[in-house]
Formats: sequence, structure tokens, C-alpha cells
Amino acid sequence: MQKYSRNSRISAITKLLIENPNKIMSLNYFSEILNAAKSTISEDILVIREVLESLEMGRVETIAGATGGVRFIAAMGEKEEKAFKTGLCEMLRDRSRIVPGNFLYITDIMLDPTIVHRAGVVLASKFAKSKADYVITVETKGIPLAYEVARYLGVPLIVARKNSKVTEGTSVTINYVSGTTGRLQNMGLAKRTLKSSSKCLFIDDFLRAGGTVNGIADLLNEFDSELIGIGVLVDNKEVTKKLPTPYTSLVDYHGVNAEGEVIVEGSTN
Amino acid sequence: MQKYSRNSRISAITKLLIENPNKIMSLNYFSEILNAAKSTISEDILVIREVLESLEMGRVETIAGATGGVRFIAAMGEKEEKAFKTGLCEMLRDRSRIVPGNFLYITDIMLDPTIVHRAGVVLASKFAKSKADYVITVETKGIPLAYEVARYLGVPLIVARKNSKVTEGTSVTINYVSGTTGRLQNMGLAKRTLKSSSKCLFIDDFLRAGGTVNGIADLLNEFDSELIGIGVLVDNKEVTKKLPTPYTSLVDYHGVNAEGEVIVEGSTN
Repeated sequence: MQKYSRNSRISAITKLLIENPNKIMSLNYFSEILNAAKSTISEDILVIREVLESLEMGRVETIAGATGGVRFIAAMGEKEEKAFKTGLCEMLRDRSRIVPGNFLYITDIMLDPTIVHRAGVVLASKFAKSKADYVITVETKGIPLAYEVARYLGVPLIVARKNSKVTEGTSVTINYVSGTTGRLQNMGLAKRTLKSSSKCLFIDDFLRAGGTVNGIADLLNEFDSELIGIGVLVDNKEVTKKLPTPYTSLVDYHGVNAEGEVIVEGSTN
Repeated sequence: MQKYSRNSRISAITKLLIENPNKIMSLNYFSEILNAAKSTISEDILVIREVLESLEMGRVETIAGATGGVRFIAAMGEKEEKAFKTGLCEMLRDRSRIVPGNFLYITDIMLDPTIVHRAGVVLASKFAKSKADYVITVETKGIPLAYEVARYLGVPLIVARKNSKVTEGTSVTINYVSGTTGRLQNMGLAKRTLKSSSKCLFIDDFLRAGGTVNGIADLLNEFDSELIGIGVLVDNKEVTKKLPTPYTSLVDYHGVNAEGEVIVEGSTN
């Protein structure tokens, strides 16, 4: 079997760690793939840990014990995070984003992998210690971002549906008042989706008064489960919120002013 | 400014390449971040290219010229792809997946990042040379997979909506016959979603007779754009297809037999 140089092993281990965020990977696993002693792999990982830390590209943690190993925790440096938020604000200030009804068009942003990917790193890093079992969102626009956060936290995603589907079996459905439309809506989750006594993080594109969030909390209650955190891309600061748990956001939105300018700034929460 | 060892640079460059799939990254970019000469970076990249190729973990391509640089192309080795498909089939054979109406419950699979991530690599690698401008899907279940394919191809995602939304401005809507329900449905895309004359790949969870695919092709026509490829996780082999363009899938589904067994096998297309 082929032997690899330290350089080569470091490249391969970096790739495997980064592609399996928040998953504990045993030294044996790397040892087998790369045909090298565990002590050698250990030294390789030390190099990776140091450079990623020095460049603020995330953390490599060691977990001791029989089921131990190493895992990669995604994170973004403070300076890069600030620049990313500033860039987001610049995009959002484009007046052509204002659509009839004074809504802000952000679908393109929520579907652009280069943005969603980085937004996912930022939100996941805020919840790195949350011990969430699932990330939950409601269809449709927040799904890619929620998926990225779930991927970085190494947990499955759950999507509450606005119309229960024939292909999902028995569902639990609840009513809630949507902040966008002011109307009574319903959303549901297939019964088999969720283990009971789960801790869930809610991720979405836009946070307004919290109608949807409270709906999600109620829905999770029906599964004896709990909403433990909220993360969104844009926080609408124009409305007073009533939320069951604290939240974090990337951008604060203060509406459109008399000159027709979109007022946004990077969030500091 | 700090200097880094070759080992350290290789770890950092590997991470940056892998996190920006199919994006051309200039040597200058790495040179600045890592405070090293371009010739040194070039040698680092050679090591990365060789080990990733040797371990069948994807390709690093060099693009010559003024706008040149290197890019990472995601790919999975033949053996790993086969094992991944076999694992998928085992999951699908679980009889509790059969829900009333003889549908197969695959929502959990379509929302599990560890599976979607790898399925995304496989599908993206089949379309690596397609020069697609966008990946398109229709809400809801296929969104994470379509997002991953878009991310690996370095293009934006588009999601056709079954109900046009107030926050998206003017939409184009078309009618189509859904293969699942046999009913006339409609789906739409906001006018601002798509540049005209675009080439699009359709990615979804399940492919049946092709009603949805033909609807997508019609919708793209309205934007003077073209459907150039189709990729799905599960191909339902029970129905005759009428498709506007060839497709690729990961798993072939042959229905449920008289003993109530789910008949699936890895696709070979």
C-alpha cells in the first residue's frame, strides 16, 4: 500500500476534517486511509490545528477516550465576519430590491452558495456549543441556509411544510399567524420526522414579529421537543418581537426611509 | 507578517480550494494570505493535486493566462461511489419507508447533510463539463441536494415555487401535470430570478414520468433559457419517461413487490 509524505497526508486530513464538520473522526480512520501510524497522524493534525487557528479558519478539537478522535468546528475570524456582513449590507442597499408592498427581495441571496455557505459558518459558530439535535426551518427560502447550519453542526435538517404531502405519511399540523401576510396559516411536520425530547435550532431568512418562530415552538411542543435557539440572516428591527428564546442575526434591517433608501447595518448580537 | 511552513500552507490552501469548488482562485490570492512567493504556492498546489488524485478525492485544475489560477473540481472515486449507492439502497429497503399510496418516504434522506453532501458530489461530478449557468429545482424536498450541486458547480440555485410569493415581485407561472398526483398544478419563477439565454440543470429527489421536468423546461423557455441536464437521487423505473434531455440518477427504484419488499439498486447511468 502506498505511503504518503507529511505534506500529502496534511492535505488529505484537512479535506476529510472540513468535509465532516463537527463529526468526531478517529485517528484510526486517518491511519487506515493514509497507511501511517496513529502517532504520525497525531503530529499531522497538530500542524493543521495550528495553521487553521492562526489564520482564523476554524478549530480542530481533540476528544480524549475510547470513542475519541478529532473534529473540525467551523468558525470565521472577527475581521472576516465583519467584512462579510458589510458586503451583505451593500447588496441589500440596492433599491431594486424593494418590491411592491415594501418587501425586500432577498431570494437571490438566500440561493447563492457563496453567500449561504459563509452565512452558515457564522450562524453555526454561534451555536457550536448548543448541543442541538436538529436544525429546523419552514419552507422555502430559508432551506439552503438551514441546511448549511445543519451540515456545519453535523445534525439533520427538518423542514416544516405549509401543505402536508401525500408522500410523508401522518403529520402534525398547527395554526399560526404569519407576520408577513397577517393571516392565519398552518404548517406541519410528518410524525416520523423527529425523535421526542429533541433540542432544535430554528434558522430562517427573515425575522419579523416572531409569528413563525412561535408556530415552530408550538409545533415542536407537540413532539415533546424544544426550541433552543434562533438564527436568521436579516432581523427586521421595525417590529417589536415576542420570541420564546434569544436569537442571533447577521444584518439589521430598519426599513426604507423617506428618500427610498434601504437602511441596513451589520448585526452586533 | 507571519511566514508559514509548507505543511501549514498546504493545509490552508486545501481548505480554501475545497470551500470554493469550481471557482478559479489566483495564485496571488494564496500568495497574499500566506505571505509566500507565487512559485512557492505553485509547488504547494502540486502536492495537493497529486495526493487528492491519488486518493480519488477530486481534481485540482490549473487555468493558464492572465485570469488564470487553480480550481477544485469535486469528484468521488468509483469504489466509493459504488459503496455510497449500496448504502443508499440499504436505507431505502427499510419497509417502514412505504407510506399509504405506495409512496416511498425519503424526506429524512433528502435532509441529512452527510448523505446530501455526498450525493451532491456525485451529481456535480457528472455535470462538471456542462457549463451550466444555474441549477434549478422545484420546492421543497430537492432543495438541499440542488443547493449542494449548485455549490459544487460554483453557480447560483433557482427554486421554482408552487405558489408565487408577495415578496418576490412579478412572476412567470406555467401549468403542468404532476406525476405524483396526476393533477394539473402550477409553478412559477420571479421574473428577476434568471438572466435570459441561460443553461440550467434540473436537480430533484425523485424522477417519475417527467411531468415536473417538462414543466421546468417550459418555464425556462419563457425566460429564453434551456434545460441542459437532469440529475435525481431516485429514478422510478416503473413508469415510462418522456423527457426533453438525458438524465442521471443514483438509485433505480422498481417499486414494491408482492412480498412487500422495496426493490432498489444502484444506477449505472
